[in-house]
Amino acid sequence: MNVAVLSGGVGGARFVQGLLDAVDPAEVTVIGNVGDDLEVAGLHVSPDLDTLLYTLGKVGDAERGWGRAGETWNALKVARELGAETWFQLGDKDLGLHLARAEALKRGEPLSAVIDRFARALGIAARILPATDDRLRTWIRTADGELPFQEWFVRLRHEPEALGVRFEGAETARPARGVLQALAEADLIVIAPSNPFVSIGPVLAVEEIHDAITNRRVPCVAISPLIGGKAVKGPADRMLNRLRGGTGPFQVTQCYLGLIDALVYDEADGEVELGHVRPIVTKTLMTDAASRRSLAEAALETVAVPR
Amino acid sequence: MNVAVLSGGVGGARFVQGLLDAVDPAEVTVIGNVGDDLEVAGLHVSPDLDTLLYTLGKVGDAERGWGRAGETWNALKVARELGAETWFQLGDKDLGLHLARAEALKRGEPLSAVIDRFARALGIAARILPATDDRLRTWIRTADGELPFQEWFVRLRHEPEALGVRFEGAETARPARGVLQALAEADLIVIAPSNPFVSIGPVLAVEEIHDAITNRRVPCVAISPLIGGKAVKGPADRMLNRLRGGTGPFQVTQCYLGLIDALVYDEADGEVELGHVRPIVTKTLMTDAASRRSLAEAALETVAVPR
Repeated sequence: MNVAVLSGGVGGARFVQGLLDAVDPAEVTVIGNVGDDLEVAGLHVSPDLDTLLYTLGKVGDAERGWGRAGETWNALKVARELGAETWFQLGDKDLGLHLARAEALKRGEPLSAVIDRFARALGIAARILPATDDRLRTWIRTADGELPFQEWFVRLRHEPEALGVRFEGAETARPARGVLQALAEADLIVIAPSNPFVSIGPVLAVEEIHDAITNRRVPCVAISPLIGGKAVKGPADRMLNRLRGGTGPFQVTQCYLGLIDALVYDEADGEVELGHVRPIVTKTLMTDAASRRSLAEAALETVAVPR
Repeated sequence: MNVAVLSGGVGGARFVQGLLDAVDPAEVTVIGNVGDDLEVAGLHVSPDLDTLLYTLGKVGDAERGWGRAGETWNALKVARELGAETWFQLGDKDLGLHLARAEALKRGEPLSAVIDRFARALGIAARILPATDDRLRTWIRTADGELPFQEWFVRLRHEPEALGVRFEGAETARPARGVLQALAEADLIVIAPSNPFVSIGPVLAVEEIHDAITNRRVPCVAISPLIGGKAVKGPADRMLNRLRGGTGPFQVTQCYLGLIDALVYDEADGEVELGHVRPIVTKTLMTDAASRRSLAEAALETVAVPR
């Protein structure tokens, strides 16, 4: 059974970990967010794709959720001593990947080919693809003006209220090679428990991806990133409240209008009417391999149900 | 007494260490080679300037002569595992400096300002200036064609015979801010015991620097990088043999025609006739602080002698 998953970083990567325990990893394609990519000192960094690589490659720092296990921070320490801006945390091992990617991108290798090569080097059987090889960047509108995503998210700890989101480059961005094929060949499309606005939003901002899901012939299921109306991590709850008027399963479905057939959400969020969207209520907190796998299995239930 | 020193990397940096023990460091300006600069994954690396920074800032690996003491290599190891070219050795701490420099250069800060700022951060009282802020790159002509300096020097371990040297960008390169003033205000100009072709050559390739030394009103002394006709390190002896017909003090003076008044060379190189150039014969091997300082003092003798 082929599964295509739209995913952001930490939460998405944990969900995919569970999914790979539940189905044949070789039949899974993860379509990752690049809206939060940035350049650090000219090096292209793809935080969400890298979190997927590290998590699925089993070299990630499981507790922190991002970055590598056994990381050292010598480069950052020196850069800081020499007066560099160091609000974006780059470990030494992490930097090694950024160097290898920067070299490859400079040579003209598309990001999707680089990530695919890295995934193989890390022994990952699933396929990881960026939504697009083109430049697509998330901007956050705040009362003080528009901010590049990472400035808002990391440097300002997403404290300024997000009044809106814009995806620079989305008008012209084409899906990366393999993305449309993965969606066309999928028996199930899954939207991981990631932030609908800034993790999944940039993927869906690529028009051909949005259209492919709108016109799907197979079920699509999203997993709510909320538990009892709260985000496990990050600003999803505040953004849903501000931009969709609430923090329940219904507001999550409003982010995916016409795109999903089912929503997996936490039992702490009660019983709600989701219209044409089938509710799948379960425990959604991913604390270990068993809970990750059982959440994936809840999502896989969707396949049994005709649209 | 103001001293201006033209310097390459390892040998030059060791010499300047000795000089700073012999004179007031605040009165020393080091004019460093940028011909061997390169981009690694888009990060600007200045090996000779960095060797000066690390050596004079007392954070260098004294035994290796380049790079930082207590260095770790996590980034490079990961980059290698991910298939990157890793013939150019970048330690994690070293990378921190390259990141800080790349960020500053991207912001538009000139290289000379960046290096000056780093030197202060490292507590260096002497001034370190790149010969130029403009792009100037050394190319080595070999039987197999022309190679960028570091490809030849590091990747091919300077094994292909150097048939000639070219300095890309030299025609238009202007001295960095402060260079001409340092030469004009110097009471003594020193050419450190560096490779005349690929360490000092790129500095002298900047026409205004060459002219300033040609038209000097103060003595200029060079220190031969040879001991008994052999280079302490690197290909200087092979290059002198091929490009100047021998490996003695006389051939060193031929690299600095019209530019020097005295040559400090090793007693192992015997007695030679150097024409208008005054020979200063001493022990030149720098093994410790005392030998470095005594070599610097031999060079400083020149000041007592009228041209």
